[in-house]
Amino acid sequence: MTSPRRAAFLAIGSELLRTERLDTNSLLALPLLHRIGYEYAEKRVVGDDLEAIAEAVRELAARHELLLVSGGLGPTADDVTREAVALALGRELVRDEATLVRLAERYRQRGRAMPEIAARMADVVAGAEVLASPLGAAPGQLLRAGDCTVVLLPGVPRELEELLTVYVAPRLATGSRVAMRTLRLGGVYESLVEARIGHLYERFGRERVTILAGKSQVFLVLSASGSDASSELAEMERAFVKLAGADLYGFDEDTLAGVVLDALRTGGWRLATAESCTGGLVGHLITAVPGASDVYVGGVVAYSNALKQRLLGVPEKLLLARGAVSREVAEAMARGALALGAECGLAITGIAGPAGGSEDRPVGTVHMAVATPRGLVHAHQCFPGDRGMIREYAANFALDLVRRQVAEE
Amino acid sequence: MTSPRRAAFLAIGSELLRTERLDTNSLLALPLLHRIGYEYAEKRVVGDDLEAIAEAVRELAARHELLLVSGGLGPTADDVTREAVALALGRELVRDEATLVRLAERYRQRGRAMPEIAARMADVVAGAEVLASPLGAAPGQLLRAGDCTVVLLPGVPRELEELLTVYVAPRLATGSRVAMRTLRLGGVYESLVEARIGHLYERFGRERVTILAGKSQVFLVLSASGSDASSELAEMERAFVKLAGADLYGFDEDTLAGVVLDALRTGGWRLATAESCTGGLVGHLITAVPGASDVYVGGVVAYSNALKQRLLGVPEKLLLARGAVSREVAEAMARGALALGAECGLAITGIAGPAGGSEDRPVGTVHMAVATPRGLVHAHQCFPGDRGMIREYAANFALDLVRRQVAEE
Repeated sequence: MTSPRRAAFLAIGSELLRTERLDTNSLLALPLLHRIGYEYAEKRVVGDDLEAIAEAVRELAARHELLLVSGGLGPTADDVTREAVALALGRELVRDEATLVRLAERYRQRGRAMPEIAARMADVVAGAEVLASPLGAAPGQLLRAGDCTVVLLPGVPRELEELLTVYVAPRLATGSRVAMRTLRLGGVYESLVEARIGHLYERFGRERVTILAGKSQVFLVLSASGSDASSELAEMERAFVKLAGADLYGFDEDTLAGVVLDALRTGGWRLATAESCTGGLVGHLITAVPGASDVYVGGVVAYSNALKQRLLGVPEKLLLARGAVSREVAEAMARGALALGAECGLAITGIAGPAGGSEDRPVGTVHMAVATPRGLVHAHQCFPGDRGMIREYAANFALDLVRRQVAEE
Repeated sequence: MTSPRRAAFLAIGSELLRTERLDTNSLLALPLLHRIGYEYAEKRVVGDDLEAIAEAVRELAARHELLLVSGGLGPTADDVTREAVALALGRELVRDEATLVRLAERYRQRGRAMPEIAARMADVVAGAEVLASPLGAAPGQLLRAGDCTVVLLPGVPRELEELLTVYVAPRLATGSRVAMRTLRLGGVYESLVEARIGHLYERFGRERVTILAGKSQVFLVLSASGSDASSELAEMERAFVKLAGADLYGFDEDTLAGVVLDALRTGGWRLATAESCTGGLVGHLITAVPGASDVYVGGVVAYSNALKQRLLGVPEKLLLARGAVSREVAEAMARGALALGAECGLAITGIAGPAGGSEDRPVGTVHMAVATPRGLVHAHQCFPGDRGMIREYAANFALDLVRRQVAEE
C-alpha cells in the first residue's frame, strides 16, 4: 500500500471567520480527491486579506502536492485572491484577453455593459492555465509552484464543483486512488460498535478505519490506497460487514430513509407516520428522498392529545390512564397511522425536554411502535443530549425499527 | 475604533480531513472570543500527526495573540497534541502529580484501576497552567509562547466549552470586546437586501457588515470593536433596522419559528399545519422550539391526495380541476388545518422535484396559504435550487407569511 498524495484546501472569506458559517466547499472536493489518489493533509480558512492569503499560499504550496484555493475571485474590492497568489509566488498578474471577451459577452447577453471593475476577473497569475466556467463569470486558474499544483476556484459551490470535475480531475488523475467505503449502521451506539470491532483495528491498522457517531447511527469509514487498494478494501469490507450483522443498513451515500423506502417499495407496503415529539422530522427525512410519494402517504403530527384522539383514534381513556408517553399510546398511534391507508404505521411519542421530565419518565424517554399486517412491535429508549439531539436520535431509531420489521419479511 | 485582537483556532483530528465531518468546535468558542475582544484571523485543521501539529502551532503562535487548540488530548496513541506543542515550543513534558491523583480517583469512582496509558493525560507542557475539568478526564493547558497565549482544549464539545468559560475567558478578558449584532430578515432574497443597503456599506465600512443568505432569509451581521463599540453598533443597528422595515423578524439568536410562536402566543392563537411538499419540515422547525406545545396543536403531512381529502377536507373535485399544486388547494388545505382546532392554519403545497415539473408549473413552484379568523392570504413562489433547498425556502417563506399575518393584528 502506497500513501495517498497530500492535498490542502484553503477557503477564503471573512464571513467564515466572523460568523457561524463553515467552509463546506472542501467537502465538495473530497470524493474527487479520493478518486484521483489525494487525501487532505490540512485545511485552512483565512479572511479577505492580501497578506494572510499570500502567507497561507506560500506555506501550503511548499508543503503539499496539491492546493485548492476557494473564493475571492469575484469583481469587488474584497476579492484579492488573484493578487495574493501572484504575491506569494513572486509572479505578475496578466490580463487575459480571451477571458475579457468572454466576460463582455456575458454582460452583453444580460443586456448590460461590462462595468470597469469586472475586468479584474480576467487577471491571471503569469503561467496559469485559465479554467473557463460556463456557469460563472470568474474563471478558475491552475498553475505549478515548485512541486505543488495550485488551483484557484470560485467560492460558489456549483461553479467550484464544475471546474473540479471538468478540468482538475483529468489533469491530476494518476491511476492511483484512495479507495473508500462507508458502512452505515442503524439502531446502535458508537461505544457498542467500537467494542465489537476493536480487534479489527489491529488487523487492518487504526489509521485506515474511522468511526463516526450519528444519532442512533454509526458510520465506519474504511480506506485503502495504492495499487492494491480495491482488493484490500474488499477484504476490510468483508470483515466489517460480518461484524456489523443486522445493524448494517447500507453503504456510502445510502440514507436510512432511502433504504427504508426501498424496502417498503419492494414489499409493496405503503407507510404512514404518527409523530409527537419529533414534530414532523420523520416525515421530513422520508420526503427528502426523491420519489417518496409512491410509498409514503403522509401522516399526522399529533403534537396535542386532541389530535392524537381525533386523527389517530387514540382513546382518551388510554391517554389519561397511561399518559401520552407510554407504550400503549405509541401502539395506538401506530394503529391509527395504519388506518390512514397504509400497510406500515410508524408512531413516536416522547419527552424531548427541556421541561416535562419526571422521575420515572425522564427527559429523553421515547416510545416507538410499528404496526404492520404482521402485528405490532414496540421499542422504548432513553436518549441522551438536548432537545434537538433527542429528536434526531428518536427519528433515526424509529426509522431503523421500520427497517428491521420490513427486513423480516 | 480599535482593531480586535487576533485569534486562531487549530482543530486536530484525521476524521476532520478524511470524512464529511467539519470542525464545529471553533464555533463554540466564537461568542466568547467576541466578548473578550478577539476575532478569528485564521482557522486550521490538521490530522493526528506530530510534525503537522507542531508546525501549525509554531506558525500560528508566531502570528496571532491567542491560539486555541482542540483535540488530541486523550489517552490513545493517536493523541499527540501534548508532544507536538512541547516540540513546537522547545519545551519538556512534565508529568503533573495533582492531575495524576485526580485521574486515578476518577477511575476508582468508576470501579476501575487506571490503565498505564491513561497517565499520559497528566503530561503537561513545561510552564503551562493545568485547566482541570470536572467533566472530562484530560485537563486543558494554558501557556505563553512569546506574545501568544496558547490554550490546549479537549475535543469533546461540552468539555471545551466548560474550560473556555471557567478558565480562558476570565484570564484573557481585556475590558475591550467585539460587539456584534445580527439582524434577521424573513421572506426576502439576498440580492434585494444588498441593493437596498448598499449605501450603508460606504457609511459604516464594508468590513463591518457581513450579509449571509439563508433560504428565504437574510442575516446581516454588524460588528464594532474598541471603546466606542456599543454606541457605534447602536448607530449601525438603527440605520439597518430602518431599511429592513417589515422584513425584520428578529435579532441574534432569534429563530423564525420562535418569533412566530411568540407572536401567536401573544395574540392567543393556536397554530395547525398542513404540509405537502415540505413533508413535516415546518412542524419540525416549530417543535424545535421548547414550549411549542401551548401554541402548536400539530397538523397533517398530507403527502398523498387521499390524506388531503380525508384529513383536511380538500374536495376531490378541486384536486382534479386545479391540481394539488394550486392556489385553490393551498387555501382549502389551510382551512382544513384551521378546522383541526386552531386559530391559524398554515398550508404548503408545491413541486420540490427533481421530477414532477411541467411548463406552467416548473420544479420549485410552491403555493402557500394562511387561514385565520380574519380570512385567507395566499402566496405563490418559484424557489431556486435542488429538492432540499426548495423545501427549506418554502418552509421559511411560509413561516414568514404567518409572521406577517399575525403582526397585522
